[in-house]
Amino acid sequence: MHAIAHYQQIIQEYFTNLSLEKEPVNLYSPIQYILSLGGKRMRPVLTLMAADVFNADCKEALPAAIAVEMFHNFSLVHDDIMDDAPLRRGNETVHEKWDVNTAILSGDAMLILAYQYFEDYEPETFRALAKLFSKTALEVCEGQQWDVDFEERNDVTIPEYLKMIEYKTAVLVGAAMKMGGIVAKTTEENCDLIYNFGLNLGIAFQLQDDYLDAFGDPETFGKQVGGDIIENKKTYLYLKALQQCDDNQKASLLQWFTSYAEDTTTKVADVKQLFQTTGADVATKEAIEAYTQKAFATLEQLDIAADKKQMLEQFGQYLMQRTV
Amino acid sequence: MHAIAHYQQIIQEYFTNLSLEKEPVNLYSPIQYILSLGGKRMRPVLTLMAADVFNADCKEALPAAIAVEMFHNFSLVHDDIMDDAPLRRGNETVHEKWDVNTAILSGDAMLILAYQYFEDYEPETFRALAKLFSKTALEVCEGQQWDVDFEERNDVTIPEYLKMIEYKTAVLVGAAMKMGGIVAKTTEENCDLIYNFGLNLGIAFQLQDDYLDAFGDPETFGKQVGGDIIENKKTYLYLKALQQCDDNQKASLLQWFTSYAEDTTTKVADVKQLFQTTGADVATKEAIEAYTQKAFATLEQLDIAADKKQMLEQFGQYLMQRTV
Repeated sequence: MHAIAHYQQIIQEYFTNLSLEKEPVNLYSPIQYILSLGGKRMRPVLTLMAADVFNADCKEALPAAIAVEMFHNFSLVHDDIMDDAPLRRGNETVHEKWDVNTAILSGDAMLILAYQYFEDYEPETFRALAKLFSKTALEVCEGQQWDVDFEERNDVTIPEYLKMIEYKTAVLVGAAMKMGGIVAKTTEENCDLIYNFGLNLGIAFQLQDDYLDAFGDPETFGKQVGGDIIENKKTYLYLKALQQCDDNQKASLLQWFTSYAEDTTTKVADVKQLFQTTGADVATKEAIEAYTQKAFATLEQLDIAADKKQMLEQFGQYLMQRTV
Repeated sequence: MHAIAHYQQIIQEYFTNLSLEKEPVNLYSPIQYILSLGGKRMRPVLTLMAADVFNADCKEALPAAIAVEMFHNFSLVHDDIMDDAPLRRGNETVHEKWDVNTAILSGDAMLILAYQYFEDYEPETFRALAKLFSKTALEVCEGQQWDVDFEERNDVTIPEYLKMIEYKTAVLVGAAMKMGGIVAKTTEENCDLIYNFGLNLGIAFQLQDDYLDAFGDPETFGKQVGGDIIENKKTYLYLKALQQCDDNQKASLLQWFTSYAEDTTTKVADVKQLFQTTGADVATKEAIEAYTQKAFATLEQLDIAADKKQMLEQFGQYLMQRTV
């Protein structure tokens, strides 16, 4: 994917040159730190790509793209506190390297810094971007709260789960792309279509993440395979298995998921088998495919040149090509 | 102060009617809770007053005023986590009533909600308000970080301390007033003057808070008199005492402030005497007076009607009339 690499380079260059060596050091150095840990920069890449798709110079969309990445990293810093996570991208999380108070305050500052990037645009565009950003940011908070709430609940439905991942993950992907459209001043219809493209691709991507967490190749997946099972996470696979199981399978699933097993190898193997015998694995793959197709269907309605459509389609395929 | 009561009523009415009964409940009910605890609503009152001063209908400034109060309460929720405070306005803090994670996430949502209130204004005004808001919010974070940093330092200078209270407290007072000016579309010069009026009054107010914490009347001060001394807080009084003391007084002060005394009554009495014998009490009163006068001096330059000037002056006097 030549185009993606190009956008990634623009984003990377920005962050490499970003110097937040401001006082007070304890507020700004954690921000510099988390932003320097890298990651795929997928969201800001999508903002640049969308601007390009709608015939703007992608660099015009750079401030909006950076705002999106700044917000994403803000949410990582605060979520890592809530999840008590020790590591992020293989490095210490901010609250581990500094402390919880620092992580709260530096996160707050990142959320504000994100808004400041929109100040590069004139009033109409500024307002449109900030409005979309606020709506999205609030939805991300709501998604995170649903996720926290679900941990304590045993009656989470599949529609509720889908709404949670939509809010927690997918809306930001949609918004990242729509921002490119706003900067490029394309039609409202195009803006909405590209938003839905990103949204559905985001849901598909998250469902794929659920699937690969159980059935991914340990060599390429990046995270510990079976981690969700060990942590009793109510993923799409789990909820689908519960829906499609018989009484024996249900008893077995519930037993595994009401305690933390000492022998995690047996637990992971046993639960994976339950995911397969109930057909939850196939159902999850079908859902991934359905959301991916839904995303591609919105592309057809977009009023843009054929080569631009192709670029978006290639990106979608690239994103979803991760396999077992 | 008839006018202030009128503005307070408008703000109070807004919050009484505000219903954040949205899902997820665990995100929104802590917000409803903290906003219902009341307080003097001084910052939003100032936004309404400033709009009035510059001949706008003060109700036009209501969304901006609510944004300011929302932000103020966001900062209280996150600061209370950092300070491990059990009570706020005589009630449980959010992280006590719920938990730290809820307080982090609900606080984040409040910061975003604050920005959303600006969406009631057209693009030019929206951009001006959001820009001032972001700048101010970031300064408040910086001020909070300085405050945290100062706890660990023994070489805090008086200019550093003044900058900390300016950022942590006074800039929001200035910004609250300037927002009224922006909504009223007054001149940039008037906007800057009203900002400086609020800023200097905010510094004077905070210095007075330091003073009253030691020398206030327990009957009327509201907080525990001597609380700062018991907590070894490096207030203006303390820093001034250190600056103006002889070697014996210095040894005594440092001894009190390097540990937590069991006999707090003796500590408070002894330190208060040191504040008096070093002349720190008089110096603090002089500083309060100087900042108050600085605020009033900017009023003279304001291009507004005499009765409006009088209203601002009366407000300043009302704010600073709290005595020992």
